[in-house]
Amino acid sequence: MADPRFFSRGQPISIAQIIETTGASVDGDVKLSTEITDVAPLETATVGNITFLENRRYAEAVRSSKATACFLPSTLVHKAPKAMIKLVTEFPRRSYSKISQLLYKSESASANIHEAARISDLAILGQDCRIEAGVMIGAFCEIGDCCWIGANTSIDAGVIIGNGTRVGSNVSISHSKIGKNCFIYPGVRIGQPGFGFEIDSSGPIEMPQLGRVLIGNNVEIGANSTVDRGAGPDTMIGSGTRIDNLVQIGHNVEIGKGCVIVAQVGISGSTKIGDRSIVGGQVGLAGHLTIGSDVKIAAQSGVTRNVKDGSIIGGSPAVPISEFRRQVARIKLLGRRNSTE
Amino acid sequence: MADPRFFSRGQPISIAQIIETTGASVDGDVKLSTEITDVAPLETATVGNITFLENRRYAEAVRSSKATACFLPSTLVHKAPKAMIKLVTEFPRRSYSKISQLLYKSESASANIHEAARISDLAILGQDCRIEAGVMIGAFCEIGDCCWIGANTSIDAGVIIGNGTRVGSNVSISHSKIGKNCFIYPGVRIGQPGFGFEIDSSGPIEMPQLGRVLIGNNVEIGANSTVDRGAGPDTMIGSGTRIDNLVQIGHNVEIGKGCVIVAQVGISGSTKIGDRSIVGGQVGLAGHLTIGSDVKIAAQSGVTRNVKDGSIIGGSPAVPISEFRRQVARIKLLGRRNSTE
Amino acid sequence: MADPRFFSRGQPISIAQIIETTGASVDGDVKLSTEITDVAPLETATVGNITFLENRRYAEAVRSSKATACFLPSTLVHKAPKAMIKLVTEFPRRSYSKISQLLYKSESASANIHEAARISDLAILGQDCRIEAGVMIGAFCEIGDCCWIGANTSIDAGVIIGNGTRVGSNVSISHSKIGKNCFIYPGVRIGQPGFGFEIDSSGPIEMPQLGRVLIGNNVEIGANSTVDRGAGPDTMIGSGTRIDNLVQIGHNVEIGKGCVIVAQVGISGSTKIGDRSIVGGQVGLAGHLTIGSDVKIAAQSGVTRNVKDGSIIGGSPAVPISEFRRQVARIKLLGRRNSTE
Repeated sequence: MADPRFFSRGQPISIAQIIETTGASVDGDVKLSTEITDVAPLETATVGNITFLENRRYAEAVRSSKATACFLPSTLVHKAPKAMIKLVTEFPRRSYSKISQLLYKSESASANIHEAARISDLAILGQDCRIEAGVMIGAFCEIGDCCWIGANTSIDAGVIIGNGTRVGSNVSISHSKIGKNCFIYPGVRIGQPGFGFEIDSSGPIEMPQLGRVLIGNNVEIGANSTVDRGAGPDTMIGSGTRIDNLVQIGHNVEIGKGCVIVAQVGISGSTKIGDRSIVGGQVGLAGHLTIGSDVKIAAQSGVTRNVKDGSIIGGSPAVPISEFRRQVARIKLLGRRNSTE
Repeated sequence: MADPRFFSRGQPISIAQIIETTGASVDGDVKLSTEITDVAPLETATVGNITFLENRRYAEAVRSSKATACFLPSTLVHKAPKAMIKLVTEFPRRSYSKISQLLYKSESASANIHEAARISDLAILGQDCRIEAGVMIGAFCEIGDCCWIGANTSIDAGVIIGNGTRVGSNVSISHSKIGKNCFIYPGVRIGQPGFGFEIDSSGPIEMPQLGRVLIGNNVEIGANSTVDRGAGPDTMIGSGTRIDNLVQIGHNVEIGKGCVIVAQVGISGSTKIGDRSIVGGQVGLAGHLTIGSDVKIAAQSGVTRNVKDGSIIGGSPAVPISEFRRQVARIKLLGRRNSTE
Repeated sequence: MADPRFFSRGQPISIAQIIETTGASVDGDVKLSTEITDVAPLETATVGNITFLENRRYAEAVRSSKATACFLPSTLVHKAPKAMIKLVTEFPRRSYSKISQLLYKSESASANIHEAARISDLAILGQDCRIEAGVMIGAFCEIGDCCWIGANTSIDAGVIIGNGTRVGSNVSISHSKIGKNCFIYPGVRIGQPGFGFEIDSSGPIEMPQLGRVLIGNNVEIGANSTVDRGAGPDTMIGSGTRIDNLVQIGHNVEIGKGCVIVAQVGISGSTKIGDRSIVGGQVGLAGHLTIGSDVKIAAQSGVTRNVKDGSIIGGSPAVPISEFRRQVARIKLLGRRNSTE
């Protein structure tokens, strides 16, 4: 079970409640009042636990599992021990996740404005917010209902944050509008001026950085990532997009909805990415590119050209993934042969 | 126009003032009292706006622009509509930037020491500083005039900061002397001990880290970048150098004047870079290298050897850019062919 | 000498004390009461200084050095000037480091709880801690003796920190147990939820992140690095491991003892690394890998497969280092030839 120092587990849940919550159906005769006290993976689950089996590869592990109940697809029901309660669903992992969330009250904040928070008299604060010690909220900010702002975070004048958004500790936000139910992790920097200069024959010119950062709903931005504000247009991140830790997003970048940006990616200024695209870890994208929707980019790639919808690319400079794989295979040969071709 | 929540626009400016400020000359008969209320790019500019045209590629866009006035070079004057006020200059972008700065009062701070700032009685603070809530300034610090220190920033004992320097929120500074008119972005870490150990036959040895960080004037350091202090010599960053977000600068590194270091670059310990060199995003430089002046390094390169003045290099390991381009072209062929050579 | 603004030098030390501390032996007749006032490298050392010579390459520099004393191996004694006090040891660098630490009192904190620190009444604080302004310590935290917590750091409920551990300014820690004598640098983020979702046919699923971060003794984590907590298992970092700046460590990662992880490395979720392995700067490791002990990975490598104990690898995707070197050599040829093979 999860360490009770950090996670508080709620009341047990009956199989009847689990069925109601997840829409799973039971296989065979089952005592619907059986109580489930915890979630656990197949290997470590014990009596009273619920687990899940999604991938045929782990089917052997289910045989010896001591879990009381298990979410699984109908095609794998026969693999489970007779005594195990089999909860049949197309989405075992998703169902498991739902029950986890029920059992472990999320870290939802108790509403409280700490006396050592510094909130401008000119800021508007919603209902039931938790504002921790050392938080600074500037004039004309609008913070929605049920927001949670972590300790020592600084929110500059005018920033708007939607209902239910959580901001971690030691975050800096300026020049931004952030939607509902977002999670901004600790140490994120949003809204600082971009790397905004150009060079002409008499040296560097500071260009004004007069844009904002606009972030949709249900967006996650990982720890210590940085999002520069626009130079004139805005930097935009669409709803449902998830950004991992230590990612750099340059000014005027536009990221669509439902994208996934893995850790340590760098996106240069004015590049646009469509919806549902996935960018692997440590990828670099040059500036002023147009990357389509449903694109997948392999980790450590360097993208220097526009990319069409649905493309899968890899390498530095990036090429279609099949080409990249051939490159890798051929380079591997080069490394092995001692001949001079 | 820029969002008034975040940017406050000043009074309109006459064409006469604009000419005086930028040194541009007017082409044809112009009413010098015409007022300009805002800046905008060619495509979005409307009546009352000033814009600029520098690159022949955008010459068509100027034809349909609704801007009242436009900075452009003499060679492109004929492209602009008859009614548009044509302000002729060799430096259109630079002139446009100047007018932007005039119209939008920079975010200069109103002088104020927040009551929740913690400043040592033994620190010296200049005139007209803005020190925000939660700032910690240690003993014997010397902060110049007109500095702006953002919320929850920590400045350890003895640090010296020159006039007009701005430090963002949630910054950590120790063991450092920082010049005038610098901009240290939110979340930057300056002066922590370097990765300072060596390994001999009986394991790792902690080497003392007894140096400092010395930063010149007009230096910018981007959000969440890290600058370790020297081990004995100092880590040095020359005047006018601009460093982007999430850059790592190791101990004893020396960077010259007017360099540009793009996001997510890593510079290993004791490496020296000359003046005006440009390092592309995600580049890694090995330790103890000497990189010359006026060097350009392509993004994602890995530099493992010394580099002469004026070189342009790319690749990992980095080679002269023409070699790198041939490598890329040949590898591309390898990826395309199915033959076995 | 080190800048007295930042470093305070203690009393001079006699050669007799130095011999006692380091176990070095003297070569020839020496006045054991001779006092050493400072440490310095060969080139800059002056009268009263002690220096060291470890590498034959620098043997010429010792001839002209003005140092009063020098640690060196017996094989290099003949290179030193006659008047110099020669302290013979197998470990010159290590001995030099010890004397540095004696001469320069480490930055050990004077115990003090700042009045502007916010410590929960339900937290347990050891003896002789230094807790700076703006620190937030949550309920049920247990902080050991002689800990030093820097300004504006946030430590969430339940966190345990061992004796003698130093935490820099502006750090965020949650869901973690940290050992003794660790050094967590400024801006580090430990314990936030990992990038914890999976995708099934009906979209992304948030997986619960119910694990912790467990950190051994004598661990260093560099500035602005990020360590996500486990999803169910824990994220673990073994004793004596040193992690540089801006490193990303994903959820469920396990790093053994005495490893060295250089700046800007990214380690994806659930990857395991053995003991004493060294990971070069900007390396990326894919998820769910098993990397052995005593492995060395060249800078900028991309590791996509399991790696056996003692392997040395390089490249992206990484291969044995000898293969990688041949690859590099062959690619270099490709870049140089103009012929079509």
